[in-house]
Amino acid sequence: MKKHYLMTPGPTQVPEASLLAQARPIVHHRSPAYTELLLETLDGLKYVFQTKRDIMLFASSGTGAMESAVANLFSPGDRVLVASTGNFGERWIKICKAYQLDVIAIEYEWGQRLNPADIESWLKKDSSIKGVFITHAETSTGVVNEVKKVAEITSRSSAVLIVDAVSGLGACELRMDEWGIDVVVSGSQKALMTPPGLAFAAVSERAWELVESSTSPRFYFDYRAYKKALEKPSPQNPYTPAICTIMALGESLRMIREEGIENVWERHRILAKATREGIKALGLKLFSPDDELCNAVTAVNVPEGIDGATIVKAVREEHGVWLAGGQGILKGKIFRIGHCGFYLPSDIILTLASLERSLLKLGFQLEPGSSLVAAQKVFIEEGL
Amino acid sequence: MKKHYLMTPGPTQVPEASLLAQARPIVHHRSPAYTELLLETLDGLKYVFQTKRDIMLFASSGTGAMESAVANLFSPGDRVLVASTGNFGERWIKICKAYQLDVIAIEYEWGQRLNPADIESWLKKDSSIKGVFITHAETSTGVVNEVKKVAEITSRSSAVLIVDAVSGLGACELRMDEWGIDVVVSGSQKALMTPPGLAFAAVSERAWELVESSTSPRFYFDYRAYKKALEKPSPQNPYTPAICTIMALGESLRMIREEGIENVWERHRILAKATREGIKALGLKLFSPDDELCNAVTAVNVPEGIDGATIVKAVREEHGVWLAGGQGILKGKIFRIGHCGFYLPSDIILTLASLERSLLKLGFQLEPGSSLVAAQKVFIEEGL
Repeated sequence: MKKHYLMTPGPTQVPEASLLAQARPIVHHRSPAYTELLLETLDGLKYVFQTKRDIMLFASSGTGAMESAVANLFSPGDRVLVASTGNFGERWIKICKAYQLDVIAIEYEWGQRLNPADIESWLKKDSSIKGVFITHAETSTGVVNEVKKVAEITSRSSAVLIVDAVSGLGACELRMDEWGIDVVVSGSQKALMTPPGLAFAAVSERAWELVESSTSPRFYFDYRAYKKALEKPSPQNPYTPAICTIMALGESLRMIREEGIENVWERHRILAKATREGIKALGLKLFSPDDELCNAVTAVNVPEGIDGATIVKAVREEHGVWLAGGQGILKGKIFRIGHCGFYLPSDIILTLASLERSLLKLGFQLEPGSSLVAAQKVFIEEGL
Repeated sequence: MKKHYLMTPGPTQVPEASLLAQARPIVHHRSPAYTELLLETLDGLKYVFQTKRDIMLFASSGTGAMESAVANLFSPGDRVLVASTGNFGERWIKICKAYQLDVIAIEYEWGQRLNPADIESWLKKDSSIKGVFITHAETSTGVVNEVKKVAEITSRSSAVLIVDAVSGLGACELRMDEWGIDVVVSGSQKALMTPPGLAFAAVSERAWELVESSTSPRFYFDYRAYKKALEKPSPQNPYTPAICTIMALGESLRMIREEGIENVWERHRILAKATREGIKALGLKLFSPDDELCNAVTAVNVPEGIDGATIVKAVREEHGVWLAGGQGILKGKIFRIGHCGFYLPSDIILTLASLERSLLKLGFQLEPGSSLVAAQKVFIEEGL
């Protein structure tokens, strides 16, 4: 007998109510019932994005929404700045290059956060930079970038700021309008507690001006088509939407609203803190300094002499707990515990307990239960 | 009390087993279990497409897969031919223009089929044409184009043939390899009996050569990334796939395999024939000649003095049967009955019965039960 626990940073666990919502009778996407569902869903998303701006909802992976920002705002030859802190920062660079933009790439060592001052000095010395691309929570390394500080800088410049918040949104604080972010893109399968298959882009007025002037080819992700469809007397999507997944998202957004977004962020902060304390109690090392870590995923250095993939496989096969390995250059060197979305203290406790037992079997020395005591103390202190 | 019957040409009815499959525990997309699901799904799709070629599976609407063919095969300035027979033919023109291709558009009157001889004469007089775009079943008008004849022509030329089979695939005969089609694109929400959110592109060797040389910007839909991910030791998708929808598709494909694709086509032929005979028995007129109609959807002329939208609304509100109105220039002039996918004689009978009662209420003269008798005779004669 085995139970499975998805502790990966995407896809993440989906509440039963949301999973089952997918099995409800399909409503036709050109009907009043769908318009009602769509508007309610967009309202819920606006709450999570903390924005009053238009949100485009695509049937796509998060990467599609990333591409949408590049294709809709810029034209070949436009100069843009990408501050990359890992795998998903590199994805911005690749997409921008695919669209023949003139890319200035600041590539930080994986595990480091970006330095807002670097962006400020680039924008000061080169006024031709039309856009800045950054990552909110860098899933590949577990760090969270200082989006607010970067937004303060870009708001004072003529460059728009585009933030990949695929894994950060709903786990780590993000206030699109208040902070002055121009485009935020995200996906359904992380802290939004919904199956994969939906992606979103929220677009500021300043960014819309670029959309109107961009000459890059685009069709499926063309923001103008989505805006036009939303402005119809019965708002809808331009192309057949992923109706069942949207019904699931509707349920999950209702749960987020009920808990309150600040409480959701706070819960993630405590889950992440407990995870880190548990990891440290085992004598393992976090991949990045405590105060630079995001609350969506915890990246842990693999101890000497053990391969990262072995740990991930052991915990999965022995205890049904799904962790993630390292991506790209970090393959085999770190493992990652996801806790963004539908997670509670018990999920962290059982994950640490499983990890402890598997590590012992792999010959790693540790004090049995030590990670549980450490995590438990955090939960009790923080009152979660 | 009301029961709802989705009789629209997409989304279509989804079998309970497929709807519920979406609620199964999510498997991580970088796991052996997902690789197994993906390979089985691609095998099932290959069977439906009647191909041995690579199939790319996207989280997207069908329109995304249409765009993928344009973006992956052609470069700005390339000359292509689009034979358009309705709304979805026009979509090919729009996408090709968005990608700055040099588009020759043959636009047939809506309701007509394309004439393969027109394509032949264009290809003969202009050898610079690199690709031909057509629509298999044109959902907006209900006609089916002679794809086989067009493929015979393009196979003898240097131009590749790209077929939009979003609504035709699985409802009307299509044999990609045997007929010599280069690219077939489709979606999950029509005859594949699956919720919307997945789209597919099958690509021939000849088309792959164009993929390698195309300079059009693309990232999310870049075929090369999907091919590379499929060639890994554990085949996967490059970006997080719509896992739950793929689980639903897996169920539906199993049902199609079990019935046998020729039997599926034959069932659609009989359902369409019975629908047409029922409509004619009411004294209503089909929008196109009988022998040019596809088996996925039946388009009916709205009788004089009644607005098409009124009929659609009445049947939906009075009997819970969802028909579709006309699109684009046909708005209000036709209504459409979808029967592609998970449909059986009882669905046609109840639809005709509901339509009869609503038409009578709207003041249309008809012989009660006449459409039912006509349809019933077809089912009995054909032994369905």
